[in-house]
Amino acid sequence: MPAIEELITEFGRLPGIGRKTAQRLTYYLLKNSPAEARRLAGALVRVAEEVRTCGRCANLSDRDPCEYCADPRRSTEQLCVVEEASDIAAIEKSGNYRGLYHVLGGRLSPLDGIGPEQLNVSPLIERLRAGVREVIVATNPSVEGEATATYLHRLISPLEGVRITRLARGLPVGGDLEYADGVTIAEAFAGRRDM
Amino acid sequence: MPAIEELITEFGRLPGIGRKTAQRLTYYLLKNSPAEARRLAGALVRVAEEVRTCGRCANLSDRDPCEYCADPRRSTEQLCVVEEASDIAAIEKSGNYRGLYHVLGGRLSPLDGIGPEQLNVSPLIERLRAGVREVIVATNPSVEGEATATYLHRLISPLEGVRITRLARGLPVGGDLEYADGVTIAEAFAGRRDM
Repeated sequence: MPAIEELITEFGRLPGIGRKTAQRLTYYLLKNSPAEARRLAGALVRVAEEVRTCGRCANLSDRDPCEYCADPRRSTEQLCVVEEASDIAAIEKSGNYRGLYHVLGGRLSPLDGIGPEQLNVSPLIERLRAGVREVIVATNPSVEGEATATYLHRLISPLEGVRITRLARGLPVGGDLEYADGVTIAEAFAGRRDM
Repeated sequence: MPAIEELITEFGRLPGIGRKTAQRLTYYLLKNSPAEARRLAGALVRVAEEVRTCGRCANLSDRDPCEYCADPRRSTEQLCVVEEASDIAAIEKSGNYRGLYHVLGGRLSPLDGIGPEQLNVSPLIERLRAGVREVIVATNPSVEGEATATYLHRLISPLEGVRITRLARGLPVGGDLEYADGVTIAEAFAGRRDM
């Protein structure tokens, strides 16, 4: 396969990138900068070689244990459970949370054949037995995320001394009441707080 | 910079790919397949190393002369002038044209500081003097593309024995008259043909 066609094909395999976009990206790199193509190639190889799964929390990182598990300033009493490693980046950007994480590696989804045994759950229970005071369930506000949260609650609630919380539902900041869906508005009413 | 962050940054440099998409692509590759990341890296390196500009038509190709210039079955009497090498792929896909190409490497755009001297025009004139019977101006149907076509027409028309044509304007096949813009409809009327 000619080099140009091969790169178009490889770009086109990425999610959300169709053939037209793949062509655009390929010709952009060809026209503007072979150096940029090499830098992107280098970053890809580095990720393939260096990134591994943290043995404690299953976060993806250059290090094992990852930067959060290895950080002595973070509280070991709080554990935030997320579906994917990418969710950690979003939470860290908010800049408030100072506890540790646990990555499930997905969510319950019977239609896709993903049950509890496909998720990183047993190590979670092990960790909870080692002095964690609060589990913050931060699965996505989707049907599967809710089902996963319910499953985790049932699993964790027998453990004594562990508080189980989940992230608040409500109107997104900067959002518009007019365009919010009914379920979100209902959740915002149910979770209303005194001013 | 950690490997994950570096790949997000590099993806984010590509046109039309914002930080969110860059994150999504990075975590997709991390989660699904380091092998795919390596394959994409290989394709990028190959493009950076192997692809060059054809010395005759300025197409981008693994070969010089490119596959079209080197193909003895293609007519040397027709020359199709395009703005970018990527336009050639689109024309080839239509499968009708059997002549040669000439890539301008852009279009006239005074606001971006692109004048005639930034385009691959002198070699075009040289080629036209060597037995070409027809120049098909296939610049884009945009303001800049039209200006470029007009400029080329003025430049080429003094040459004797060279017919100058341009691609027809009209309704795109599969399009909807209702949603076509007024200029396109006007062009479709002006270029109407007997049935």
